[in-house]
Amino acid sequence: MIVLGVDPGTRHTGYGVVEIVGQKERILDYGAIDLSPKMAHAQRLSVIYARLTEVIEATLPDECAVEMPVYGQNAQSMLKLGRAQAAVMLAAMHRELPVTQYTPKEVKKSVTGNGNATKQQVWYMVKSLLALTESRGLDASDALAVALCHGHRVHQGPTGKFKNWKSFVEANQDRIIE
Amino acid sequence: MIVLGVDPGTRHTGYGVVEIVGQKERILDYGAIDLSPKMAHAQRLSVIYARLTEVIEATLPDECAVEMPVYGQNAQSMLKLGRAQAAVMLAAMHRELPVTQYTPKEVKKSVTGNGNATKQQVWYMVKSLLALTESRGLDASDALAVALCHGHRVHQGPTGKFKNWKSFVEANQDRIIE
Repeated sequence: MIVLGVDPGTRHTGYGVVEIVGQKERILDYGAIDLSPKMAHAQRLSVIYARLTEVIEATLPDECAVEMPVYGQNAQSMLKLGRAQAAVMLAAMHRELPVTQYTPKEVKKSVTGNGNATKQQVWYMVKSLLALTESRGLDASDALAVALCHGHRVHQGPTGKFKNWKSFVEANQDRIIE
Repeated sequence: MIVLGVDPGTRHTGYGVVEIVGQKERILDYGAIDLSPKMAHAQRLSVIYARLTEVIEATLPDECAVEMPVYGQNAQSMLKLGRAQAAVMLAAMHRELPVTQYTPKEVKKSVTGNGNATKQQVWYMVKSLLALTESRGLDASDALAVALCHGHRVHQGPTGKFKNWKSFVEANQDRIIE
């Protein structure tokens, strides 16, 4: 499975593409889309959409995972964040990738074991898990963490008690809809 | 000039297309995109984008005007509003329409003369100005008001003292960049 993880923002949108085969995780691409504050807001959304579409076409992910804070202190910044999220969601959906949303807490917990980990702690774990040597900024490593979080979630199955879908399905025969 | 006006929302997105020739204003299309609360959020954005793209392809507007409240009481609702705005902006930009943003106050003032007019007062003025006989809901009439607001603004020129671009340009020869 190839997962595109994204951490959207109207100043910096991080992305990371991870291939997950069994227990093995391998980076296909990662980076950050940096948007000038001088650029008009609508234009920034267009750049996020276009750049992510390029990444999707180059790496052909199966799924997209997006980090989405749903609460914030400032209505104005939430409006801008919502716009960036939408640009990411539309780029993914227009390439037929299912989109799953994760809160920052879920991502941190999945990758470091601690829902309140710092960005540096997340970077340290991502570096270890993916044998990364080069940093491309904390937005990019956050996005890789989102991709890893989705990979772990899919492998665990919805209850978190199963190692993979096969074991989950075997234990839940009554929940299968024919 | 043909103007697409949009009043974005994740429950209802109103749209209205108005052709403006001199002092004459004529409706080409208007309506509301109603989104079920049962629909996933990402899916709603996809529907807004797809439906507006259809409207754009059918009516071929030259410009797009979007009503955009920039302040709000609730961070959560601003996040959702930002997403709907982005779906509208991307649909317009992907069809190469320039996007202009107006606050609700600007739209109301332009159409009714009162920045604090009610939705009903806006509907009444839109109905008179465009000789409308059929209501398609207040979201649709709001969107028509946005299109009219943009038309008025363009005709007035940036200072509001001129009737059209020609008279503005004639009075501002020193401001023309060769």
